[in-house]
Amino acid sequence: MHAYRSHNCGALRSTDAGSNVRLSGWVHRKRDHGGLLFIDLRDHYGLTQLVLHPETPGFAAVERLRAESVIKIDGEVVGREDGTVNANLPTGEIEVRVKSVEVLSEAAELPLPVFGEPEYPEEIRLKNRFLDLRRETLHKNIVLRSKVIQSIRNRMFGQGFLEYQTPILTASSPEGARDFLVPSRLHPEKFYALPQAPQQFKQLLMVSGFDRYFQIAPCFRDEDLRADRSLEFYQLDVEMSFVTQEDVFAAIEPVMHGVFEEFSDGKPVSPIDGAHTFTNDFGETLEHKGFERLTYAQSMAWYGSDKPDLRNPIKMQVVSDHFRGGGFGLFAKILDADEKNAVWAIPAPTGGSRAFCDRMNSWAQGEGQPGLGYIFWSDDQGAWGGPIAKNLGQEPTEALMASLGLGKGDAAFFTAGLPSVFAKFAGLARTRVGTELKLVDEDQFKFCWIVDFPMFEWSEEEKKVDFSHNPFSMPQGGLEALETQDPLTIRAYQYDIVCNGYELCSGAIRNHKAEIMLKAFDIAGYDASVVEEQFGGMLNAFRYGAPPHGGLAPGIDRIVMLLANQTAIREVIAFPLNQQGEDLLMSAPSPVADKQLKELHIRTAPPIKV
Amino acid sequence: MHAYRSHNCGALRSTDAGSNVRLSGWVHRKRDHGGLLFIDLRDHYGLTQLVLHPETPGFAAVERLRAESVIKIDGEVVGREDGTVNANLPTGEIEVRVKSVEVLSEAAELPLPVFGEPEYPEEIRLKNRFLDLRRETLHKNIVLRSKVIQSIRNRMFGQGFLEYQTPILTASSPEGARDFLVPSRLHPEKFYALPQAPQQFKQLLMVSGFDRYFQIAPCFRDEDLRADRSLEFYQLDVEMSFVTQEDVFAAIEPVMHGVFEEFSDGKPVSPIDGAHTFTNDFGETLEHKGFERLTYAQSMAWYGSDKPDLRNPIKMQVVSDHFRGGGFGLFAKILDADEKNAVWAIPAPTGGSRAFCDRMNSWAQGEGQPGLGYIFWSDDQGAWGGPIAKNLGQEPTEALMASLGLGKGDAAFFTAGLPSVFAKFAGLARTRVGTELKLVDEDQFKFCWIVDFPMFEWSEEEKKVDFSHNPFSMPQGGLEALETQDPLTIRAYQYDIVCNGYELCSGAIRNHKAEIMLKAFDIAGYDASVVEEQFGGMLNAFRYGAPPHGGLAPGIDRIVMLLANQTAIREVIAFPLNQQGEDLLMSAPSPVADKQLKELHIRTAPPIKV
Repeated sequence: MHAYRSHNCGALRSTDAGSNVRLSGWVHRKRDHGGLLFIDLRDHYGLTQLVLHPETPGFAAVERLRAESVIKIDGEVVGREDGTVNANLPTGEIEVRVKSVEVLSEAAELPLPVFGEPEYPEEIRLKNRFLDLRRETLHKNIVLRSKVIQSIRNRMFGQGFLEYQTPILTASSPEGARDFLVPSRLHPEKFYALPQAPQQFKQLLMVSGFDRYFQIAPCFRDEDLRADRSLEFYQLDVEMSFVTQEDVFAAIEPVMHGVFEEFSDGKPVSPIDGAHTFTNDFGETLEHKGFERLTYAQSMAWYGSDKPDLRNPIKMQVVSDHFRGGGFGLFAKILDADEKNAVWAIPAPTGGSRAFCDRMNSWAQGEGQPGLGYIFWSDDQGAWGGPIAKNLGQEPTEALMASLGLGKGDAAFFTAGLPSVFAKFAGLARTRVGTELKLVDEDQFKFCWIVDFPMFEWSEEEKKVDFSHNPFSMPQGGLEALETQDPLTIRAYQYDIVCNGYELCSGAIRNHKAEIMLKAFDIAGYDASVVEEQFGGMLNAFRYGAPPHGGLAPGIDRIVMLLANQTAIREVIAFPLNQQGEDLLMSAPSPVADKQLKELHIRTAPPIKV
Repeated sequence: MHAYRSHNCGALRSTDAGSNVRLSGWVHRKRDHGGLLFIDLRDHYGLTQLVLHPETPGFAAVERLRAESVIKIDGEVVGREDGTVNANLPTGEIEVRVKSVEVLSEAAELPLPVFGEPEYPEEIRLKNRFLDLRRETLHKNIVLRSKVIQSIRNRMFGQGFLEYQTPILTASSPEGARDFLVPSRLHPEKFYALPQAPQQFKQLLMVSGFDRYFQIAPCFRDEDLRADRSLEFYQLDVEMSFVTQEDVFAAIEPVMHGVFEEFSDGKPVSPIDGAHTFTNDFGETLEHKGFERLTYAQSMAWYGSDKPDLRNPIKMQVVSDHFRGGGFGLFAKILDADEKNAVWAIPAPTGGSRAFCDRMNSWAQGEGQPGLGYIFWSDDQGAWGGPIAKNLGQEPTEALMASLGLGKGDAAFFTAGLPSVFAKFAGLARTRVGTELKLVDEDQFKFCWIVDFPMFEWSEEEKKVDFSHNPFSMPQGGLEALETQDPLTIRAYQYDIVCNGYELCSGAIRNHKAEIMLKAFDIAGYDASVVEEQFGGMLNAFRYGAPPHGGLAPGIDRIVMLLANQTAIREVIAFPLNQQGEDLLMSAPSPVADKQLKELHIRTAPPIKV
């Protein structure tokens, strides 16, 4: 028989009754019961109930063992009596009568219990991660992560992609965030940087003719931490040659849809086989399959966000015309003041009660707004009520509310002013209305593409036109657009995938022509010499035959976080750093020997205390 | 039709004749031929021959295009005439008559030609890696790498392993090599380190109950570079719980054998289904399947190396008894001087010529040896000759050579002294004899396990007992062995896989008990406090229930290097650093802004020039 086990702890069934078996695992739980000792023996695969009689050799030793000790037992499988079968456990039909026990590793008193996984402070969990990881939820999350990633890999291979590794010790790349630096021993006063993303390398792979690249790529950003962000994270980095935006969508939709279907645990996932009609910002109507699409402008107007949670059915509407020159003076005046101003409505079906509307109004004030105007029709009223309705008048109010598809028992909220200023707040109000009124069916995964991002934006800080997202994107209309259009009207072939309010990825069709890139940077105020200096490697490559190409990079940790139904990224990473960027288990970061610093030609320079 | 291509450049066959197609790709080669322009259009998938007539729109533009420009063409597929079919090309039965051309990206004059891939200095290749990577051999190597890794992953999943990611920003781990350090911005004067290997994390995963772990793991060592070593490399990191050495072998043999069979291009690979008899250092004979096994002591004695190339059939033998007290005074005296001394023979079948023996002797002198004794029997001699034979006498010489299985036309070389001193040289001599006599059939992959490594060795430098390899290995015999045996006689459950003279991986059954680990470190002269400080995270974990576990870590880059028939690791890495650790394409390492250093609380301290 094998030195440690004939079966794992999740394997035995009633058909094994009578067999002599050997099991090894952790003492999950121990109970004394009428002189007998019952032990739930646990390993990666499951739990098996052991029974020890007082005369079993080693009984005394096992009796005083602490939970989480590791033992090996020999015993006989017996079927449980009808009343004691545990239907919740795959091995619940049997138990193992122990004949001999060997203690493989005795556990000291636990700083963190495993059984029952009671809530514990994060610091203790991270410091004892090896115990935390034995707890059922976290253990499952990490296994899920592994399976999700392998599923993604196989799906990418299935789509004709190959995985290529790009360097981790590389050059500082101006991606917008702060680099981690690595001092070079062989080259004094020079530094490697860890990649914020393999952006330039994946484009170089396209220029090198590799056609369809992906990588589950580690990325590093030295940024302050949030629950859904980590210093070190993984993305499904993707790039394709000779493609349009449609090709990228067609390649990645089955991967995202497939992996979510596979691991959603029965929750519905946005289908990709239905037909959609999509009207872009220029009024062109296009048919397409796959996930729903919204332009950036639509997403901002309808949801007040470029990361809309479509599980929330509320869609905001522009209702300026209902207020222009009308009886509600405040809004009429705002609309008069600037033609860019507008009034948006946030429909609130079933929200027709003064109490709810007042609650929303107070919430808005808590968010620093003067208030949140509303119209409502509560069950005990005969018509639309609230100050706005009173001022606007009965007929205009009815026309307004009818245009929103609302009636008795419903309400609507209104924001007025410059949309670029209030859109974000309106989006928050939409979310709050949806949540408060329980309009959101959370048990689903709702995907959409956000497309047609503006190429440039006005930077209030720097009082100049700047890139709104990725400077490497191809502007719609190419060089001609850059040379002839108002930069702020130019859209980029740039797109995001959003799921349940989380941005899962950004991507773009790239600018593969050096002259278009130089022009785009010129518009954003960067001199050609700066571009050559910062992106010389890639720019130079474009001069020796570059294919049109594009891609995207879904965040692996976020995908797993969504599938594991978690809101903190640390719950889907085996050994995460804490909020302060520390590894409490291995003690990182830590001081190093002077000799090491000397070899690297650096000295520490502690911040001066004032 | 698609914006860029209806087919890729490797797709069209004679059955497509008559179709109108669109292709995009690089101008691989261009030939003028009787007024017609022939272009080999290349992409990742293959080559297609294009034909342009002078009247084709765009003919003039294409005629002056440089090689490696990217074009898109529309045209008609036509079958080639019998005499012009190219059987070496999958698309060789057809060509495409071009009707229109669009230049997608014009190439400037190339610093490195792609077509024909003439040899070029490495510096130019690395600086223009995007062109180098288009060249057939390198392109194929990188594709091979991707496929090998995916094959390994699938095989590991097939064996019930899951892949788990371990941190890249972690603590300095004393693995023997130099760490790369990453200064922390949030924690002044503290540093992360990049992992030399995820050794401690994989063991922690076992303590966390994950049972079967693997990872294609990036590893980092700040060491001086060699052809087969890189600052950043990947290993197939593996760890298993509740296993003996046999289980590790049984899990990994099918993976290694399978992946080599899959990609060996027909070269034979050591089988894993045959039965072997293995005699260990204690004279115990064991039967086993899988790869051949040698103890460390055997490998040193037979091959003078713990990385034997078994393609070389020569096996050295101890022939001391033939010389003890015999006529060859030099050897007799050496044997008399110290009972540890020995005489080894390196049989050289077909080496029976004075010229060859003299050449070997000169080579040995070039290696700093006094010479290399030999006995030979050339075709024009009637018996064994050479100075040793003369002194030893005819009968003893015949007995000696018969014991080596040698006869007319053969030779043997001899080394005498302390084996631990001369073994390495003897191994080199064996290699040289095998190569010179063309005894080595290179077109095969010969695997073996080296087992039973000594746990400790005598450090001449420090005049003390030290670990000979991995301090985390379990000593054979456990705590009892440590407490009762001469440390230098203790073997570890430690093993290597060697293929064709390359060490592909190291591994071990780990020490999972804190008290055994402390005792082992104690023997090597490390105080408990040092162990607690350096390995506290892992040692502490062992105190809360640790399973017996073990694993190994084959080097991915070396595996691909062997399969791609390369001797430099840079030929199987897409974007490698050069021998000086520089990325010539992206300019890394490079100076950084003072602001960045300030944020990281470090200053540079250039070496003082003398």
